[in-house]
Amino acid sequence: MKKTAFPLSEVYRLLEPGPVVLLTTIRAGRANVMPMSWHLMMEFTPPLVGCVVSNRNYSFASLKVSRECVINIPTVELAKTVVACGNTSGRLVDKFKAFGLTPVVAASVKAPLIAECYTSLECRVRDTKLVAQYNFFILEVVQAWVDAARKRPRTIHHRGEGEFMLAGRMLRLPSPKTSLGGK
Amino acid sequence: MKKTAFPLSEVYRLLEPGPVVLLTTIRAGRANVMPMSWHLMMEFTPPLVGCVVSNRNYSFASLKVSRECVINIPTVELAKTVVACGNTSGRLVDKFKAFGLTPVVAASVKAPLIAECYTSLECRVRDTKLVAQYNFFILEVVQAWVDAARKRPRTIHHRGEGEFMLAGRMLRLPSPKTSLGGK
Repeated sequence: MKKTAFPLSEVYRLLEPGPVVLLTTIRAGRANVMPMSWHLMMEFTPPLVGCVVSNRNYSFASLKVSRECVINIPTVELAKTVVACGNTSGRLVDKFKAFGLTPVVAASVKAPLIAECYTSLECRVRDTKLVAQYNFFILEVVQAWVDAARKRPRTIHHRGEGEFMLAGRMLRLPSPKTSLGGK
Repeated sequence: MKKTAFPLSEVYRLLEPGPVVLLTTIRAGRANVMPMSWHLMMEFTPPLVGCVVSNRNYSFASLKVSRECVINIPTVELAKTVVACGNTSGRLVDKFKAFGLTPVVAASVKAPLIAECYTSLECRVRDTKLVAQYNFFILEVVQAWVDAARKRPRTIHHRGEGEFMLAGRMLRLPSPKTSLGGK
């Protein structure tokens, strides 16, 4: 794997722009992959990430029971794979095999990293207070991996109805050092 | 104002790609503007939006007390204004006046819309269970306004450390009709 350890205090920089991610979980030895766009940063250090995983998805019970997952960030080369993962269920399909994704053993959790994604964030479930009412989980990122060679990752951003916005050019402005009002 | 009413069931399409937004609030007759990137969709209908507004920000008390706000989505033309709003506090500055933003009276809430933003979402606070612990508010969008002429809004996406990703080209793929695993 080309990815190397990435500082936890910088994790917000990867998720704050709002990319589609691939959530991996494992249950009874069976790994699954689910695309997800409903996530937000909630704290810098330790990095906390909130996300909605519907109880209609196969991944819901895996996440709830195992209390672990990996958030993988794909780039445009994987766009069709992302869509394929969203159009099938882990109940019926081994998505790693079906879509040519390579599982990599994680350092701190049982769910696998996805080799083809430029970033993988190993997470533990930290708070389930709003799971029953909103399917909302709060995760703590415990280990982050990034392919440091990818300076300008072309992440994909879901606009619904089959439309994705691709990450465009970068703009540098003297913004606050940390977040944009998030803290 | 060029904006017209937008269906509430489509609001997720505006926020799911992860743009920086400008949150407006009002307290004691004084409106304020705060840039925010820590937000997520939580439900389609009625549209629920979760967001972190730090208790160190002037907007926190306004939101908590008034239980209303407007989420305005700016495009790249407003990037410098967004940064200026993030580098000043509503305690000291009337940001509408200081940065040339035009307040517009909302239909259902007291906080103003921002005329210069291509989208404005009037919101009421729906759930404050996680405010004390995480500064996390759940909002319900009660009225949405969009400038329908803006087919390809060049939204801005915060990457931290003064770096913004601009919305790039669109990609069409046969994704699920609704969300990407979010439900």
